[in-house]
Amino acid sequence: MRTLNVALGERSYPIHIGRGLIDRPELILDALKAPRVAIISNETVAPLYMARVAEPLEAAGVKVTRVVLPDGEQYKSWESLNLIFDALLGARCERSTTLIALGGGVVGDMVGFAAATYQRGVPFIQIPTTLLSQVDSSVGGKTAINHPLGKNMIGAFYQPKLVLADIATLDTLPARELSAGLAEVIKYGLIRDLPFFEWLEAHLPALVARDPEALIEAVERSCANKAEVVAADETEQGVRATLNLGHTFGHAIEAGMGYGVWLHGEAVAAGAMMAAELSRRLGWLDAEQLARIERIHLQARLPVRGPDLGADRYLELMAHDKKVEDGKLRLVLLKAVGEAVIHGGAGRGDILAAIEARQGD
Amino acid sequence: MRTLNVALGERSYPIHIGRGLIDRPELILDALKAPRVAIISNETVAPLYMARVAEPLEAAGVKVTRVVLPDGEQYKSWESLNLIFDALLGARCERSTTLIALGGGVVGDMVGFAAATYQRGVPFIQIPTTLLSQVDSSVGGKTAINHPLGKNMIGAFYQPKLVLADIATLDTLPARELSAGLAEVIKYGLIRDLPFFEWLEAHLPALVARDPEALIEAVERSCANKAEVVAADETEQGVRATLNLGHTFGHAIEAGMGYGVWLHGEAVAAGAMMAAELSRRLGWLDAEQLARIERIHLQARLPVRGPDLGADRYLELMAHDKKVEDGKLRLVLLKAVGEAVIHGGAGRGDILAAIEARQGD
Repeated sequence: MRTLNVALGERSYPIHIGRGLIDRPELILDALKAPRVAIISNETVAPLYMARVAEPLEAAGVKVTRVVLPDGEQYKSWESLNLIFDALLGARCERSTTLIALGGGVVGDMVGFAAATYQRGVPFIQIPTTLLSQVDSSVGGKTAINHPLGKNMIGAFYQPKLVLADIATLDTLPARELSAGLAEVIKYGLIRDLPFFEWLEAHLPALVARDPEALIEAVERSCANKAEVVAADETEQGVRATLNLGHTFGHAIEAGMGYGVWLHGEAVAAGAMMAAELSRRLGWLDAEQLARIERIHLQARLPVRGPDLGADRYLELMAHDKKVEDGKLRLVLLKAVGEAVIHGGAGRGDILAAIEARQGD
Repeated sequence: MRTLNVALGERSYPIHIGRGLIDRPELILDALKAPRVAIISNETVAPLYMARVAEPLEAAGVKVTRVVLPDGEQYKSWESLNLIFDALLGARCERSTTLIALGGGVVGDMVGFAAATYQRGVPFIQIPTTLLSQVDSSVGGKTAINHPLGKNMIGAFYQPKLVLADIATLDTLPARELSAGLAEVIKYGLIRDLPFFEWLEAHLPALVARDPEALIEAVERSCANKAEVVAADETEQGVRATLNLGHTFGHAIEAGMGYGVWLHGEAVAAGAMMAAELSRRLGWLDAEQLARIERIHLQARLPVRGPDLGADRYLELMAHDKKVEDGKLRLVLLKAVGEAVIHGGAGRGDILAAIEARQGD
């Protein structure tokens, strides 16, 4: 087991990474405020892991409330959140009850937001079971639900007490979701860690083949990158925004296609290619660097073009993004492979051209 | 104008108290991050004050979005909160938009929660227009909405940037609501400030007659008491809970009668009498002190008995309160007039007897 610390003063917490952590209840027991938890999962993950997490805790004297939500990005909604609140209130869960998020990013984001707002805040633990949530959404305390007019529009910054990233849970992950997770892994290399990017270029075949050692290394280096950025800028006043490489374009893809049609990581991959294309048009990347970025995404079996929504429609959807300030679209672009920059000065024409070049088959 | 500072480190903020503050747009302008606000009010308050707040800001170049909600505790719900989110997203309000809560405690709590969660947090300003919200809900950063299974069950701790308590807005307040506000004013004397309690005994006739100087003094001393408590314990790990004197009984009254039938302050007054009665049974108060507490509530034209719900029903409703820990009911009781204590050791029989003695006509 490897352990990383996310350094946020009194809100600091550890991330444990390894195989079989889900079967070590003492890791959870040590973090509880009271012997009372609610484990929240979804219909896909609960049959695989709910009993394995819940039963050893019960055997240790913890009262466990189980909540199973429908599975899918389209359920990252107020209605699902309310299912959590109904269950917590129905079981008379108190302020000392710890919520445990058992699942991917959707479960993690919703349970985190439920923990941030139930009785004005209760402790929570993340057990991410997808690569995406292990390397991204379980680190940094962003919690949210979607609103019909925008993704992640309602949420809070709220840190977990503990994250258990059990690589063994990736054994059951569909290949498409593994690839989607790799999109965020590649992103860390692209925005701030050239040596990691080079390591990924060499190890992507091993990652796609789910080699445990390669996965542990990729998860740890991803989390370490994210933890450093988050520690420097918890509430995204500055550098944290670079983690959104590809996300403004990507959110337009997800919203334009209907949430859940493209996986988040797939949309981020295509979005990162649009950002790279725009960076090339601004003279920061050359054609060879662009090809290198495309190559690594293809190695990860990710899309390198977005759907054909029409470039104007992309822009319209992007204007709803949280990264807008004083009406100006601020984009994360690349000065080089391994160096991101936040840029509000790209012209409408260049942005449209970059989208145009990277949409459709 | 008098100014109090709520000392919470980097989340510190000023409370301005005086007559006519609503007509001083510079107080608001100085606190804005960007020239963009959304003013959220209700159907009762908006016709009186919305234009007076909005128009001078617009004249100064601020873009203003107006949101008017239905009036009443029963609308302190997810549905109303969503009306705010819909309006903010519809008007493309960004992270730098400041939300302004213009109204009483319901508006303040909901707008505060909207500010805490819209795009994971935007700045907000409180302009409380009731005595209750001036002395209580606008100080301390508790924000929330109700859930069908419990009051204020979903919320966050989130501090405003500024509070403007304009005593002139109390001119239009119904007498019943003025009295309800006095319940919280009296509470500060009861729990921690005997000199203020004695001042109130002398000045309640002036307060009921809305004497401006008396009101300014009462609001300032109430806010100062609350600000001290909140600064010592922002997230209610300890002493802040004493502010809930009468609230656990009071929430049972509000829930048992249906939210909005009894005003919050009325329920708190009857609840404080139940807490005082229980304190007498525990030997902490004598009959004369109990009578003194009853007298001041009667001077303020407040109820000193709760509705006849049946004592068992009270207890059942109280068990849903957030002040429950490990299944144990923790009550705020009085060691003396001016000294509250948090006590988890009252027996079921004593609690039932205290309720019994103070319910029904």
